[in-house]
Order: sequence, then structure tokens, then C-alpha cells
Amino acid sequence: MARFFNVFSLRNLLVLSLALNVSLILRVLYEKDSEVMNGLCLDKKRETLMATDSVPSEAQATETVYLSMPSFSSSSTADSNGGDRIINLDHGDPTMYERFWQQAGDKSTIMIPGWQSMSYFSDAGSLCWFLEPEFAKEIIRLHKRVGNAVTKDRYIVVGTGSTQLYQADAVEPLSVVSASPYYSSYPLITDCLKSGLYKWAGDAQSFNREGPFIELVTSPNNPDGYVRQSVVNKSGGILVHDLAYYWPQYSPIDAVADHDIMLFTVSKSTGHAGMRIGWALVKDEEVAKKMVKFIELNTIGVSRDSQLRAAKVLQVVTDGCEYPTSLRSLFDFAAHLMEERWKLLRAAVRQSSLFTLPEFSPGSCGFLNRSFEPRPAFAWLKCEEPIEDCEGFLRSNNILTRSGKHFGVGPHYVRISMLDRDETFYIFVERLSTIHLRQSRQVNETGE
Amino acid sequence: MARFFNVFSLRNLLVLSLALNVSLILRVLYEKDSEVMNGLCLDKKRETLMATDSVPSEAQATETVYLSMPSFSSSSTADSNGGDRIINLDHGDPTMYERFWQQAGDKSTIMIPGWQSMSYFSDAGSLCWFLEPEFAKEIIRLHKRVGNAVTKDRYIVVGTGSTQLYQADAVEPLSVVSASPYYSSYPLITDCLKSGLYKWAGDAQSFNREGPFIELVTSPNNPDGYVRQSVVNKSGGILVHDLAYYWPQYSPIDAVADHDIMLFTVSKSTGHAGMRIGWALVKDEEVAKKMVKFIELNTIGVSRDSQLRAAKVLQVVTDGCEYPTSLRSLFDFAAHLMEERWKLLRAAVRQSSLFTLPEFSPGSCGFLNRSFEPRPAFAWLKCEEPIEDCEGFLRSNNILTRSGKHFGVGPHYVRISMLDRDETFYIFVERLSTIHLRQSRQVNETGE
Repeated sequence: MARFFNVFSLRNLLVLSLALNVSLILRVLYEKDSEVMNGLCLDKKRETLMATDSVPSEAQATETVYLSMPSFSSSSTADSNGGDRIINLDHGDPTMYERFWQQAGDKSTIMIPGWQSMSYFSDAGSLCWFLEPEFAKEIIRLHKRVGNAVTKDRYIVVGTGSTQLYQADAVEPLSVVSASPYYSSYPLITDCLKSGLYKWAGDAQSFNREGPFIELVTSPNNPDGYVRQSVVNKSGGILVHDLAYYWPQYSPIDAVADHDIMLFTVSKSTGHAGMRIGWALVKDEEVAKKMVKFIELNTIGVSRDSQLRAAKVLQVVTDGCEYPTSLRSLFDFAAHLMEERWKLLRAAVRQSSLFTLPEFSPGSCGFLNRSFEPRPAFAWLKCEEPIEDCEGFLRSNNILTRSGKHFGVGPHYVRISMLDRDETFYIFVERLSTIHLRQSRQVNETGE
Repeated sequence: MARFFNVFSLRNLLVLSLALNVSLILRVLYEKDSEVMNGLCLDKKRETLMATDSVPSEAQATETVYLSMPSFSSSSTADSNGGDRIINLDHGDPTMYERFWQQAGDKSTIMIPGWQSMSYFSDAGSLCWFLEPEFAKEIIRLHKRVGNAVTKDRYIVVGTGSTQLYQADAVEPLSVVSASPYYSSYPLITDCLKSGLYKWAGDAQSFNREGPFIELVTSPNNPDGYVRQSVVNKSGGILVHDLAYYWPQYSPIDAVADHDIMLFTVSKSTGHAGMRIGWALVKDEEVAKKMVKFIELNTIGVSRDSQLRAAKVLQVVTDGCEYPTSLRSLFDFAAHLMEERWKLLRAAVRQSSLFTLPEFSPGSCGFLNRSFEPRPAFAWLKCEEPIEDCEGFLRSNNILTRSGKHFGVGPHYVRISMLDRDETFYIFVERLSTIHLRQSRQVNETGE
């Protein structure tokens, strides 16, 4: 890491910190949502923002119903595949996890007295003054238990996931790359928030420009779920490892990740998207300090309430691993659910014969003590010929997904969230399995 | 407001939204802190961030002590004016309010079960999808009770206070002005985060450029506490009224504020700085929608946990006004404390004969049903001749303040937080009152 400080100026570090924030924010943006991003970018061009409505109306309805009445009943469910109900799997609100936390009951409840956490300072004496010490402790405890990342001699920097760090000006733009298919919001944010400081340089595999660069390595990858390594074969780069999905419910934990900068988020590990809390494990003190300075300037710390709640939630997760009770651990719960969902999805895909899915090799998981195939948080679905616009095709069947074109790949792919509530997921797979039949039937009935 | 949409493009609205965020973030930055800002700006020039430590070590120490042991004892208090203890009143952590909330007890405690607020959506069907309905309800209830702002037919937009909206590029910069003395971080943020979109145009009173502009009207004003009105005498401007201090503990509430865009924050009204929650009351639906879109893109909503807690805290405040108990209402508590502190400060200033303070005319407060002089959250202290560098002079007496030069005024002024904990404040006034004597004594003792 020491070489960073010979090679990189503050400007570059800004970008590094930016990269952290990009990655954190992108985790948030997964759910909420590239439509908005697209809307904004497009709208910028035509100087109006009002054309797109980021929240599909049906999603609003279920959300509201659910919030006031936590059950899976839905008045709009007409038949086994949900009638005409719109199934929104574009953004990936991890509501699948609600059931676990309902079962977990009171032990995950947090109480915050009115007089607590009033000051801005969480831990004024520490390097990251806005990091709640209790949260830091639970982060370390969880990583140690799961064995998915080195925490020894690492600095923890908490973030809310924000893009402010794009802002600074710079003489020469710094290239930001990621191997395709890459997360759809990377180029969108880059293009929306042109700062002159960095420049989206596209697919890391074909990157051959001169000068310093940042490579974002998302592993397991969003959207396709594959394990990844850095692909740029050049020196002078900063590697940021986005390990949001490197948890046993999604991926066999086959090694303790040991990179210079590693990013995680509560949203995908415990399902608490509304907290919008992420953290970085950083090897080099100077890098960590600079990240803190930038997050301090740009987000001025992170909600203390959410951090306290995150600490409690992580504590329950780790306790559940260490002291088994009648209630399964979060990872058992989610691993079981993801396994079941992927089975159902693969069965539906086979039945429809219109789609294909990535295939994964099994890996040995040191945490769950067994070998299994990855079951990613997103399904990277391909529509087969003659369907060219997979997103449009699914949309005509009231299934909202995110087109492959946003990920640096063609429109014959879509990304589908696997983390929605049970009811939504079951309607989705049921509908997917019968799309071919239904469409044939419709064609026959209308005499076309 | 309708004319906005003839006059202003999306780019301009970006700046409007930016202005909202500036103001919200600035409330946060009050406390934490222009040193950092200065540090960053300076450091940018010399390409290193490590030179400044934003958190004075003494403040760290007391903070840590307090968090673990909520009492006002301090091991470092050697004599009646705190010995050599550094009194940091530069940033204004509103810790004065902790005592009220300790007395308020359990009714201000919030419980959040693990399964709650997991989704990103607070109220998916509403204009501001990331605004917790309960928080919105309590905002309206509080404003109605206090009578400080119109809420009828207004849209509420919640914000975390962030600067991301500075980011977008633009062909022509838009001028942002505020009458001096203006809040110190306006120009700093503007200069640090050059976006090409807007340009800090300095003192609103001398602003005479062509083209659209934003005028930030902070009333009562930070740093000097005076009530303000718009001063730019031109059409084509957007007025953003920052009413963070328009609460009865600081200012007589003599009218129901009725502006197009009004900003408030929990930090200065209830003292919950760590929540970092602010809100805007917006007259025009289209303006509100665009603000939401930008906050959605840039902060992607606001911590749901903090909003839930803010709702609870506001509820307790309003209940305390409506159903008087043995416990004074927050406003009674804080108004009494501010009145007492200003009396002490004015007495100390008289005693030292080295300083002067602004004088305010009494106003009639419809809420507290009496007439009183404003008692601002900051004291705008002037050092008299021959002291030229007031900040440096006070620093040599271990009192940290913010120099007038950051507010568009000379170094003979400083801004001093009036919202610190009792112990800190009392040491401060005691020391201030004896500075002259002590300095004379020192001079005599050393024989100079």
C-alpha cells in the first residue's frame, strides 16, 4: 500500500474514496433504482425531471399494504401466477429477510433513549470519529465468525453510500473501470455527475489507457453472480473489492478475503436496506484517514441511530451462529431460502424453454461446512431467440427487470432480484414457467 | 412559484435543490466543522489531507468521558474557570439539550424491532417516497403548535444535509449569494466542490450580476443572530429561507413564516445533531418533486431509523407544549437556559471590557406569550482595539472560536457556540470575564 502514496496524489485518493462511495451507494441504488438514474440523465438532456416515475405504482401499493399489515395477502392476486399483478424485480429491496427478523423477535429490537447520540461525535478520539464503537466491534466479530474477510490490522470506515466525492475538480480525469457485465449504475453515475475528476472508462477487460486508474472488482459479481478477480494487467491502479455478496447465503466462503480495500453493506448481509449503512475494511492507515476526511466533508459522518441499530442486528446474527437455538441463524435461513429459490427458478426456466441462466460450479464453504453452488442475489437471465428485448418481453408479462444493456451487455439479458418477499417471488416463478404456454394460448385465442 | 418554471431550467433547479442541501448540510457543518473544510481546501492545494486534525483533542476527551458517563464532572477542571482546559466553542454541538432529554426520560425512547424499516421505501405512494409518514405528521403538528411556519398546502421534503447536488455540470455558472456576515461554510463548500454549476458570488448586498441567482436568507442569521429579509433587489432569483433558528428558545416568534422554500433542522430545534435530519417546507409541487428527485439521486433517501426517532422526539416536544406537566416543555427549558446564558455572557463581556456583543430589540413572541430579546445560538463577539485577531487572542486563552474572516467579515469578530453543555459554558464565561485581569496579572508577574 505504501506505493500508493508515491503514485497517487490527493486527487487520486479522492477518486479512491469516491470509488468506495460509489460502491456503497450502488448497493443502495440497486434497490432504488436505475430507472431514476436513467430518468435523471435523460431528463438532464431535455431539461426536465418529471417524465419518469421511479416507483412503479403496483410496487407502491404492495409496499404500503405491507407496511401497515405485515402479511403476504394481496387483494390483487387473482390466480396462481398473480393475475395481472405487476411483479417488480428491477430494484432489489431485500425484503426476503423480513421474515427472519420477525421470527427473531425482541432480541433484535433496539431502544434509543431521547438523550442518547445527540452529539455529532460517535468516537471523537478514533480515526473514524463518526463510527459507533459498538458497530465496529460487531463488524469485526461477524467477519471473524464467518471467515469471509481479514479484519486484523484493518481500519474500519463507515459510509452511507453517497456520491458526493465525485465533485472535486481535477486537471486530468482518472479512469474508473469494471469488467463487464458491470453494475449498471457505475456508468450512469459517472455520466450524470461529471466532475472532471474521473471518467468512466468502461469494460476493464479492454482497458488500455495510460495513467492511474481504479478497478472496481465486485465479487461475487452483480449482475451475473460469478466470482471475480482483478482483470486489468497494469500497474498504477487502485483495486477496490466490493464484497457485498460474499456471504454464505449467496456464495461458498472458500477463503478469507485479504485485499487492500474491501467493501461490505448491511443491506445485502442482513437485509436492512433502510439503514443504508456500509463499511470498508482498509489496510493502509493513510488511505483510511483520507477516506474518513472525504466522508467527513461530504456526508459528515453517518446516522448514529442507524449505526446503533446495525450493531444490534449484527450482534444477533453473530450470536445466532455462535449459540445455536431453535431459531436458525440468519445465514442458515437465507442460504436455505436462496437454494430453494434458485431451484424453483431453474425449474421454471426449464419449463418455459425461453430462457437460460448462468451455471455455477460448486465450491466448499468453510462456514456452512458443505459444498454448494453459488445462489446469487440476482439472476442474470438470458432470453433465447427469437426474443431480442428480454426486458421488454418480460415487461409485457408484467414482470419488471433490468435490461442487460445497462450492464455493458446486450438487451437479450436481464437482471432479476432474487431477494423480494416470498409471495412476489413465487408469483414470479409461477408466471415465468407458464409464459410460453400463456402466450401460445393467447395467440390461439385471438386467432392470430 | 409558477414563474420558476418559465425562468428556471432543470439546471437551475439543481442549484435550488443544492441550496436546500447546502443549508441542511451547513447545519451539520456548524458543529463539525469549518476547520475540516478549511483543512480540505487548503490541503487540496498542497495535495495532502493530513495536516489538520479536525477534532481538538480536549473535545475528544470530554466527549468520550461524557458518552460513557453522563455527568458533568471533569477531571481536568482545575479551578473555577477550568484551568488550562481547552474550551471548544468553534463548532456548535448542541449538547446543551442533553439535560432536557435526560429529564424527559422514557417517553422519548424509541424502540425499533429488527424487522421494521428494512425496505428502502418509507411511503412509496407519496411524493417524497423516503419521508416517514409519522415524521411528516409530527413536523406539521409542531409547526402548528409553535406557529413559526405555514404548513398548509406545503410539501415536506426530508434531507440528510449533503452536498452531492453541487456535482452536476452546467454551461453557465449560477450565482449563489448571501448577505454578509454569512455562514462560513457557504463559500468554502462552493470553492471546494466546484461544479461549474454554481458559483459563490459573495455578499448578497453587493450582488449585481446578470442572470438567475439563489439568495440564501438565514433568519435569525448565523453568525450574528439578526432577523433578515432578502436583500437582492432583482427579479429572476430563487429565495431559500433557512429558518433553522426560528424557534422560541432563540427568537421571538412574531409571525408565521410564509415563504416559498423554508428549511428547518432537528439539530437546532431539539438538539439531536447525531440524527442529521432536516426538512424543507415547499410551496410548489413541481419544485418539491424536483427536490425529491435530486435527493433521491444523491442521497437516495434518508435514514429511516433517524426519521423514526425524530418523529418520536418531535412528538414529545409538541406533547410537552399541549399537555403541560411538571416537566417544562423543551422550549421553556431551552428559552430559560438561553436567556440565562446570554445574561452571563453579557455580564462577562462587560467585566472584561475587551469585547462587545450585538444588541437586539425585544420582540413579542406569540408562542411564549411574552416579549423578549433574541438569544441566538451563536454569539457574534467583537474584540475591541488593540486586539486585531480575536480568534487568535481567545485561542491563546484556550477558547476555540471561529474567526469572523470565515463569515465575510474581518478577524476582529468571532462566532461562539452558545449550545454546549453547562459545564463548558460556565467555564467559558468565567474565563472570559477574567481574561483581562488574568492577562494583566500575567504581565505583572512576568515583569513585562
